[in-house]
Amino acid sequence: MAKKHTTRAEDYSKWYNETIDRADLAENSGVRGCMVIKPYGFAIWEKIQAQLDIMFKETGHQNAYFPLFVPKSLFEAEEKNAEGFAKECAVVTHHRLMTDPNDSTKLVVDPTAKLEEELIVRPTSEAIIWNTYRGWIQSYRDLPILINQWANVVRWEMRTRLFLRTAEFLWQEGHTAHATKQEAISETIQMNQVYAHFAEKFMAMPVIQGVKTESERFAGADDTYCIEAMMQDGKALQAGTSHFLGQNFAKAFEVKFADKEGKQEYVWATSWGVSTRLMGALIMTHSDDEGLVLPPALAPIQVVAIPICKSEEDLAVISERINELGLKLKAKGISFKFDNDNNRRPGWKFAEYEAKGVPIRLAMGMRDFENGNIEVARRDEKTKEVVPFDDVDVYIENLLNEIQENLYERANNYKAEKTQEIDTYEEFKTKLESDGGFLLAHWDGTKETEQKIKDETKATIRCIPLDRKKEEGFCMVTGAKSSGRVVFAKAY
Amino acid sequence: MAKKHTTRAEDYSKWYNETIDRADLAENSGVRGCMVIKPYGFAIWEKIQAQLDIMFKETGHQNAYFPLFVPKSLFEAEEKNAEGFAKECAVVTHHRLMTDPNDSTKLVVDPTAKLEEELIVRPTSEAIIWNTYRGWIQSYRDLPILINQWANVVRWEMRTRLFLRTAEFLWQEGHTAHATKQEAISETIQMNQVYAHFAEKFMAMPVIQGVKTESERFAGADDTYCIEAMMQDGKALQAGTSHFLGQNFAKAFEVKFADKEGKQEYVWATSWGVSTRLMGALIMTHSDDEGLVLPPALAPIQVVAIPICKSEEDLAVISERINELGLKLKAKGISFKFDNDNNRRPGWKFAEYEAKGVPIRLAMGMRDFENGNIEVARRDEKTKEVVPFDDVDVYIENLLNEIQENLYERANNYKAEKTQEIDTYEEFKTKLESDGGFLLAHWDGTKETEQKIKDETKATIRCIPLDRKKEEGFCMVTGAKSSGRVVFAKAY
Repeated sequence: MAKKHTTRAEDYSKWYNETIDRADLAENSGVRGCMVIKPYGFAIWEKIQAQLDIMFKETGHQNAYFPLFVPKSLFEAEEKNAEGFAKECAVVTHHRLMTDPNDSTKLVVDPTAKLEEELIVRPTSEAIIWNTYRGWIQSYRDLPILINQWANVVRWEMRTRLFLRTAEFLWQEGHTAHATKQEAISETIQMNQVYAHFAEKFMAMPVIQGVKTESERFAGADDTYCIEAMMQDGKALQAGTSHFLGQNFAKAFEVKFADKEGKQEYVWATSWGVSTRLMGALIMTHSDDEGLVLPPALAPIQVVAIPICKSEEDLAVISERINELGLKLKAKGISFKFDNDNNRRPGWKFAEYEAKGVPIRLAMGMRDFENGNIEVARRDEKTKEVVPFDDVDVYIENLLNEIQENLYERANNYKAEKTQEIDTYEEFKTKLESDGGFLLAHWDGTKETEQKIKDETKATIRCIPLDRKKEEGFCMVTGAKSSGRVVFAKAY
Repeated sequence: MAKKHTTRAEDYSKWYNETIDRADLAENSGVRGCMVIKPYGFAIWEKIQAQLDIMFKETGHQNAYFPLFVPKSLFEAEEKNAEGFAKECAVVTHHRLMTDPNDSTKLVVDPTAKLEEELIVRPTSEAIIWNTYRGWIQSYRDLPILINQWANVVRWEMRTRLFLRTAEFLWQEGHTAHATKQEAISETIQMNQVYAHFAEKFMAMPVIQGVKTESERFAGADDTYCIEAMMQDGKALQAGTSHFLGQNFAKAFEVKFADKEGKQEYVWATSWGVSTRLMGALIMTHSDDEGLVLPPALAPIQVVAIPICKSEEDLAVISERINELGLKLKAKGISFKFDNDNNRRPGWKFAEYEAKGVPIRLAMGMRDFENGNIEVARRDEKTKEVVPFDDVDVYIENLLNEIQENLYERANNYKAEKTQEIDTYEEFKTKLESDGGFLLAHWDGTKETEQKIKDETKATIRCIPLDRKKEEGFCMVTGAKSSGRVVFAKAY
C-alpha cells in the first residue's frame, strides 16, 4: 500500500482501476473480457442483490430460472432483438472434446460432436423466456406473470472494463406478461421507479429518470425507461433500464391468451434489468483519491475497530471493551469488524480500510481507554473526533445515517453542478469538452440530428426526462421547433 | 387436477415427473437437456441456498464469482480432471452471428469470428479458479483461501431428468487452498459434515457419510467424501461430495507458497459441491401418491388457510379471523398464505396445496367460526383435527416442528429397513432385484471386482462408510479377505 494512489485529476481511468485493485473488488481473469469478482467486491454485490430482491418481491415478483443457452432458431425469432445482439454472441457449436491425435496431453474439439443447431449463450433471455411463456398462458386468468431471474449473461464486448463492460456479467432480468397494454406500461414505469429508489436510497446515487429515444432503445422494445447517473469525470452512466416490449415477443413466439370474452389476444410484455455495472457506478459516484468510499447501506463492513497498543496486556484490556461494543453494534444490525491482527501495524490497517471504503473506523489506545474515550473517524469526510465510549453505539448508529445522507447530498450537489441548460451548439461543444456533465438542450426530435451530434461530439441523448418541463424552444443544431429539453452527455 | 396421479407402485419414474409437474416445480425447456425452474420450485431452491449460505459463512467461507468460460489450454492443464469432463463439454467456438446470405430473416455463425482458442462452458471450476489463485498466493500468510461460488455449470448429459441430471444445473462449489495436507483434509471432512447436517436437519433426509472408492472419485481428486441418501424406490442418490484434491491442481497451475521458513511448497486444495439435484432428492425422499411432501424447514409456504363459505358476508367474517392469525404466525417467522381466491372451490384448493406439499392446511367454515374452532390438516400424515382457534398459532408452531421430526424419522426408518448386510453374491443379486436399498457387503478392495459387480448387477459402491465397524470377512465375489463392509446400491 506504499505506492501513492493515482488521483482522479491525474488519470481518471487509471484511478478507477487502482481503486478497484486496492479495495480488492475484482480483477481481470484468464478469459478475455471476463472478470473475477473477489470476495470483498462480491460481498457488496450480495448486499445490492439482497435489497433489490426484497424490493422485487414487495412488488409481487417471484424468482425463477431459465436456461443459459438459446437455440439459434429461437434467438432469431424476434428480429430486432436478434439483430441487436447478433454481433456480440458467444456461440456453442460442439458438445465434446477428444484427445488431440497429434499430442495425447492436449484436447481438441471432437468434430463428430457438432450440434445440429448452434446454441447462443444468452445475452438476454427474452427469447427463451417467451418461448416458455407460450406454454404457461392460455387465458387472462394466467396473467399477469411477474418473474425475475438472477443470472449471468454474455455479450462479446471488444473493449472491456471491470464492472462497466465485461463479456460475462451478472444481472437480474425481470420478464413480465400482461393482459393489457396499460398494465404493461405501468409495470415498466414502476420497475424504473424501483431502480431509481434503490439508487438514491441505498447507493446514495441521484439519478435522472427518463425515456430513451428510438435509436437508444433496447432492441425489441417499444419504449425504454432508464435511470442515468453522473460520474465524477462528467460522464453519464446508464444504471438501469426498464423496457415496454409491446406485443413484439408475443407475436414472435405466438403467445396469445383468451380474454374474458373468449377472444384471442397477444400478450403484452416488459423486461427490466440492472447488472454488476452498478458496482462501477457505486465506485465512481463516491470514491476519492484515497480509494473506495461506500454508503453504509451497502458496506459489507460498516464499522471497523483497530486497537493501538504495544503489549499483549494492553491488547487484552482494549479487546474486552471493543468486543463489548461489537455486541451492542451487532444487536443494532450494524456489521462490525475488530481487526486485532498482530502482524499488521495500525497505520497499515488505517490505509487498508480507507482503501476499502469502510464508512466508520474506530481506534482505541490505552490513553483513550483510560479516559473512557474512543476515536471515531468517518471515511466520507476524512474527519475524526474523540468521543466518550459510553453510548458510542448510539453515536455510531446516528453517524452511519448521517454518512448515508451526506454521500447522497454530496453526489446530488455534484450532479446539480454538472447539469446545465445549453442553448447553442457552440456552447454545447465547448461545455462538453471543458466540464462534461448533463447538458439539457433542445432537439428537433429526428434521428438524423441525434446522429450528427453523436458523430461530431460523442454525446448521446441519455434520455427525455420524465419530469421535464414544457418549454418552447429551437433545436440547437437545426433550429427546428422543440417542446422541451432532452438530456445529452458523453456516457460510459 | 382431475386426472388421477400415477402411484409410486405403478410407475416410479412417471410418478416422479408427475409430482414435479403437479407441484409446478420445473419443466423441460426448448433447449436439449436444460430445465426451467418455475417459481415454486425456485422458492424451495432459494430456501436451500439461504440455509447453506449461512452454514458456509459460519464455517469461515466467503462468496466470490469466477468466469463461466474456461479456455481450452487451462481446461486441459489438470489431466485427470480434463479427461473426466472432456466428453461432456459445451464448447464455444465463435463470437458473432451474421445474417444468412441465403435468407435475410435467418442468422448463421460468422465464420470470420472464430475464436483463436475455444472456450469450455465450465463443467466445474477448479481450472479457472486455480489459475486465478496462482496470482493470490505468495506466502503462508495468504492461506487459507476459503471461497464458495453459487453458479450454473454445464455437463452435456445424454439422458437427462428434471433436477437429477440436466445439461445445465445450478450449484455451489467451494474451492479452498491450504498450507498443509492435514488442514485440507480437515476442511474436506468438515464440509461433508456440513452437507450431512444440512440434509438431516433441514431436508429431513438421513444420509450415509463415506468415502468413494478410487473408481468413483471426482476426476482430479485424491479422495472424495460424500453423502448418500436412499430414495423410495430403493435406489441411492449421491446428494453431495467434498473432495480432497491434494496438490494436483497446485501442480497443474504452478501454485506455490513460501512457508514460514521461506521454503516454496505447493498448495493443498479442496473442492465441494451440492446442486439442484438436492431438489430431486428432496422430492423422492418424502413425497407420496398425492404429490409433493415438504419438510417445514424448506417449505416456501408452511401454512395455507382456506375459507369455506358461500356468501361474501361469511367470507368477510372469516377473513378477519384468518388475517389476525396470519399476523401472529408472521411474527413467529412462519410463512403463511391465505387463499381467498373466489374463482376456485375449496376442493380444488385442497388438492392443489396437497400436490404442492404445504405442510399444514387450515380450513374454516362458519360453523368452525361460531364454535371458535379451526380445522388443521397435516400433509405428512394426511390427518386432520378440529382445534380451538385461541392459541392455534402456538399449536401450529409445535406442529411444524413435529412434522419436521416426523419426516426425518419416517425417512430414517425407511432407510434402516432398506439397509441390509449381505454375505453372498447370490443373495446380493436377489436382494438387489427384489428390494434394492443399501447392501452392506464385503469386497476385496480391487477395481476389477468392483467393475465386475457393476457390470453384472448395475450396483456400484456408493461409499466406504465413515462409521463402518471393523469386521473380518470375505469378499462376496472373490472370497478374498476384507476388513469391513462397503455400501453397495443401484444409484441415480
